[in-house]
Amino acid sequence: MIDLLVCYDVGTTTEAGRRRLRRVAKVCVAHGQRVQNSVFEVSVSDVQLLTLRGKLLEIIDPTEDSIRIYRLRQPREKHVEAYGQDKYVDFSEPLIL
Amino acid sequence: MIDLLVCYDVGTTTEAGRRRLRRVAKVCVAHGQRVQNSVFEVSVSDVQLLTLRGKLLEIIDPTEDSIRIYRLRQPREKHVEAYGQDKYVDFSEPLIL
Repeated sequence: MIDLLVCYDVGTTTEAGRRRLRRVAKVCVAHGQRVQNSVFEVSVSDVQLLTLRGKLLEIIDPTEDSIRIYRLRQPREKHVEAYGQDKYVDFSEPLIL
Repeated sequence: MIDLLVCYDVGTTTEAGRRRLRRVAKVCVAHGQRVQNSVFEVSVSDVQLLTLRGKLLEIIDPTEDSIRIYRLRQPREKHVEAYGQDKYVDFSEPLIL
């Protein structure tokens, strides 16, 4: 699996922008999780990456938005630091509720 | 040098949030560039990373904001895809104006 970070820059001052963000979030969350309002960590296979990229490019408005997809270093938890309000949940660890 | 991605999630609906974003931007841009409204690519030494992290943690409001720092894979240009409005400028290449 490939660990990716998807960063989406969209104007959320318009309803159309907010709608695009919701759609991008839906596509990304199917393969991972939302770690910030418009930043997503996803894990995909090579084939899923093709589909994911295609869907994202269908949703965004290239004249207004920016989307950046980074391949993360593995293991991801060794290469990320999070401060403040951390929304990440490690689903590969046992969840204690 | 260490290539980092700094993702900052801050509410920009308040003047205080916008001010924190401006301050985070200033600190990050000293070591790199702003690639999205609240996403920065920076290159730092081990020592600069300590200073950068310290400054960022001084600026953010941990009860409201989220900041995530990813170590990027190198060479960075092989592991990032950008679509739409791309603000990145490769300063290591000759600039043709």
